[in-house]
Amino acid sequence: MNQQPPMPHACVREPVTLINAFTVPPEESDRFLVRWKDNARVMAGRPGFIRARMYRSLVDDAELRFINVAEWESGAALDEALANPEWRASLQRVLDDPDLHITPRPVVCQVAVEVNPGDRL
Amino acid sequence: MNQQPPMPHACVREPVTLINAFTVPPEESDRFLVRWKDNARVMAGRPGFIRARMYRSLVDDAELRFINVAEWESGAALDEALANPEWRASLQRVLDDPDLHITPRPVVCQVAVEVNPGDRL
Repeated sequence: MNQQPPMPHACVREPVTLINAFTVPPEESDRFLVRWKDNARVMAGRPGFIRARMYRSLVDDAELRFINVAEWESGAALDEALANPEWRASLQRVLDDPDLHITPRPVVCQVAVEVNPGDRL
Repeated sequence: MNQQPPMPHACVREPVTLINAFTVPPEESDRFLVRWKDNARVMAGRPGFIRARMYRSLVDDAELRFINVAEWESGAALDEALANPEWRASLQRVLDDPDLHITPRPVVCQVAVEVNPGDRL
């Protein structure tokens, strides 16, 4: 399974969030998380990385079983990280693992609305 | 379009995150956000609500065009909020709007891995 790097976001100087929703067979969850942590370790060392949270659905058979929400200082920083050979190799190991049958759905976003308790919006 | 309230999570005393990825036709984005803010205003007034961020994809034709990430103090608090008649009515107005053709994909999650800069994981 091959995946090209996402489209460049070099013109985006504001913070961006890479959200990746994964379909993962329940029995492959542990293996997926081990592989993903290898990838996250590389990500966590790149300039402009702010924070990531990998969320797991409370139910095993959810189509969007794992959802990674990773904040970056800018689209440019994300693009540079995505182009890093070590990260690309690490990501390829996740995608090429013959014992993993996952479907990633990456999307690069910006915050449209932030809501805090009691906000009147 | 009808949608039943999600399955109860009353036994979950830890924080949960409701992630809802929406497919939204690009020309309906503004209307969707207006409607969603009405819903978010009700959500923001419920006990146990911590914070929500509505993310918008940088590209118009993404399948997951809008993604709401809403943090709650517990699964029990989320369940109580979801059962609130005002919230349900507000949500129904979003789903029943004849000028909106959206597909929601709600999933209730917990944080499996948190990653900060330089983490060795």
